[in-house]
Amino acid sequence: MAKPWATSGIDLHLEPTGGGVRRGLTDALREAVRTGRLAPGTRLPSSRALATDLGLARNTVADAYADLVAEGWLTARQGSGTRVSDRTVVPPAGAAGAVGAAPRPREPGRPTHNLAPGTPDLASFPRAEWLKAARRALATAPYQALDYGDPRGRVELRTALAEYLSRARGVRADPDRILVCAGISHGLRLLGAVLRARGARTVAVESYGLDVHWKLLAAAGLRTVPLPFDERGTDPRELTDQDAVLLTPAHQFPMGGTLHRDRRSAVVEWARRTGGLVVEDDYDGEFRYDRQPVGALQGLDPDHVVHAGTASKSLAPGLRLGWLVLPPGLMEEVLAAKGDIDTCGALDQLTLAEFLTSGAYDRHVRAARLRYRRRRDALVAELARRAPRVHATGIAAGLHVVLRLPPGTEQPALRAAAWQGLAIHGLHRYQHPDAVVERRDALVVGYGTPPDHAWSGALEALCAVLPE
Amino acid sequence: MAKPWATSGIDLHLEPTGGGVRRGLTDALREAVRTGRLAPGTRLPSSRALATDLGLARNTVADAYADLVAEGWLTARQGSGTRVSDRTVVPPAGAAGAVGAAPRPREPGRPTHNLAPGTPDLASFPRAEWLKAARRALATAPYQALDYGDPRGRVELRTALAEYLSRARGVRADPDRILVCAGISHGLRLLGAVLRARGARTVAVESYGLDVHWKLLAAAGLRTVPLPFDERGTDPRELTDQDAVLLTPAHQFPMGGTLHRDRRSAVVEWARRTGGLVVEDDYDGEFRYDRQPVGALQGLDPDHVVHAGTASKSLAPGLRLGWLVLPPGLMEEVLAAKGDIDTCGALDQLTLAEFLTSGAYDRHVRAARLRYRRRRDALVAELARRAPRVHATGIAAGLHVVLRLPPGTEQPALRAAAWQGLAIHGLHRYQHPDAVVERRDALVVGYGTPPDHAWSGALEALCAVLPE
Repeated sequence: MAKPWATSGIDLHLEPTGGGVRRGLTDALREAVRTGRLAPGTRLPSSRALATDLGLARNTVADAYADLVAEGWLTARQGSGTRVSDRTVVPPAGAAGAVGAAPRPREPGRPTHNLAPGTPDLASFPRAEWLKAARRALATAPYQALDYGDPRGRVELRTALAEYLSRARGVRADPDRILVCAGISHGLRLLGAVLRARGARTVAVESYGLDVHWKLLAAAGLRTVPLPFDERGTDPRELTDQDAVLLTPAHQFPMGGTLHRDRRSAVVEWARRTGGLVVEDDYDGEFRYDRQPVGALQGLDPDHVVHAGTASKSLAPGLRLGWLVLPPGLMEEVLAAKGDIDTCGALDQLTLAEFLTSGAYDRHVRAARLRYRRRRDALVAELARRAPRVHATGIAAGLHVVLRLPPGTEQPALRAAAWQGLAIHGLHRYQHPDAVVERRDALVVGYGTPPDHAWSGALEALCAVLPE
Repeated sequence: MAKPWATSGIDLHLEPTGGGVRRGLTDALREAVRTGRLAPGTRLPSSRALATDLGLARNTVADAYADLVAEGWLTARQGSGTRVSDRTVVPPAGAAGAVGAAPRPREPGRPTHNLAPGTPDLASFPRAEWLKAARRALATAPYQALDYGDPRGRVELRTALAEYLSRARGVRADPDRILVCAGISHGLRLLGAVLRARGARTVAVESYGLDVHWKLLAAAGLRTVPLPFDERGTDPRELTDQDAVLLTPAHQFPMGGTLHRDRRSAVVEWARRTGGLVVEDDYDGEFRYDRQPVGALQGLDPDHVVHAGTASKSLAPGLRLGWLVLPPGLMEEVLAAKGDIDTCGALDQLTLAEFLTSGAYDRHVRAARLRYRRRRDALVAELARRAPRVHATGIAAGLHVVLRLPPGTEQPALRAAAWQGLAIHGLHRYQHPDAVVERRDALVVGYGTPPDHAWSGALEALCAVLPE
């Protein structure tokens, strides 16, 4: 079974990477296994021998081997050395149920293909443009801009956001009513604390959504109650005595629909009638491909709707910049919940303000919109050709799509994906535990996630795990 | 009384500033009043006339006038137009007690001289070096660094901090036990929530400190109880059944002493005996001028002491970057208090990591130490010459000094400072409301605050308000 292995015979692509030599070696070995250049069962040279061949420290090689063993690409056994794992066979559906019989899919360290929803293509983050904006911002900022700041955020950014949100999303925004926060989760955390301090008990949410949001509200002492979901999306008729409602009106996450006009009105009417608070999570409002995006719900009634937005999808989550546009009077309570301290870095805030006002943001979003639209079109076309029983649902928007599958095929597809090193999510994980919804087999595919060079490989890997 | 006023006769120094034309005009007018070029009682031209003279919109001039009226530099009265206030006379001590008799000191918009403690010289923030570090950091970071991150903060920064804190402050740090937060206040907020969740009730604090810290703890539901303070500093003998203690051991804020060796030991012994938590606020540990700074208290017992540090004094508060080095087992509770979300921008974290590892941080701190040391020396020398009854106290360290004044002179000095546009703090505002301490007349002077070009003017203004 063991095959001789000559280092010189294999192109390891050992290029310097950001992570240093060890990661470069790990990546190169992983790639060699993944592509089959190192076949299953192949015995690797000892770490000492490979280190000598490559001119590296022995520990570097030993560490790289250890990483890959941990990830499941290699196996190490006393006496038989380090070998490439025998892991290319996709187990049949249901095999994972036989405890002890089926080998466990590898722990995903970094997946080979990443179609998990929730992030934009980070490799396309406009690094050079961002640095230029940072330089311009720092060149013009008075030194006082580096002091402790307004707990609402820098006025430059709040002013730029007010203009942008009004123009791009129809938000009725005033810089004095905008709070800069570290993303929508941070904003929700603050709103949860405000609601709790007001004596609120329950927040209506959608049947499908992000469990991290539900957990943040629960941590604030609030019960989340899911609204019914039907083919027309979230149904607000069960809004009664809840204290607030959290919605994704422009692009339901993850199901992908737009809240119907009548339902938008019904939500706002409920808020006016009861004094309930509407929280609009507008996470990807910039990305609509077939028409102008529907305007923000907040535009209908700025007195009852909190508009929550973020740079996480349009630029990068790592910026940790989001914003709340608050109804009159709510700012003071939110700042109290925040401890009246400023928490977002001034430099990033000034840079984003410069990015917005200089037009760099619009240019970046236009380019990103084109890239994501092409990916979505390619995905839909490939599905029609290779997986006709699978249907892409939702509007042409955002960075993800829900693929409806034939009944009973979600779990097998997820297991196959795990074995292929394809990161992808089942719809099930986005279903609220108390939701009463029909059983839907579906995958949530983040086509925005991979870098350009990895996109076609990821699409190929996706098609390979879908039911034919 | 009214004097004719020809615009062309006065050099308004109307230069473009970061804040636009309106602020430029406001600053120029304020400066003209302050320096006496516009004498008390002078009647200003109508906003319409001045706007025509200067080629500005009338509203711009009217707004600038309104700002200066609000600040007390100008007075506006129906029928008699806008005049320069009659406000150059420093009122005698006690005059403020005669309600209605003494004119109120102006609301400080931006003070003419700023010696308020709490900020470093922001004009010396190393903008070019920081941008270079940002460029290097962005050039080498993998794109995944821009994704949602570890709620503890970027591993690159935690690793660089562990090395730096060990080397510079004797902290026993492990990257896995470091939490990056948005400054010490943010860290205290999280620790307050953790303590409260554990059922804690009281936190011992120092008799002198920051009320923003006490308020953050109170907002978490904790009672702050001040420890006695004597000539040897904070006395830990009254540490009994409190749940935690918050201290500034290296450089008591604001009093300026170092916690005595015996008292350091006593604090740690208390923590070991009772399981109480010690929180060490090491806000300016980098800046000691006469000798090596005393090592961090955390080094004595990393299992019971939280070490809290910040870039706010060494670089700039606007970065909103601080850190907690946590005892084993505490991280999970702190992350839960944080909602398990990451809140600090990745780019600033990567840049600070690069700044630390490249040596730029050390170079910057050395230069800053020299600058602040010179200012402190100049201040002490000037006091000896011009105000022999005033004594600088505390060790030669940090960015501020406490000036002990003859009894009964703190309030008059503060009033005189307000009238001169000199921002300065009385010791009184740093005294815990429940502290039982002897009455001390003193000023807290932030000699680190002004930019270099404004330092000698600020020192001069300070000497002018001190009792002779």
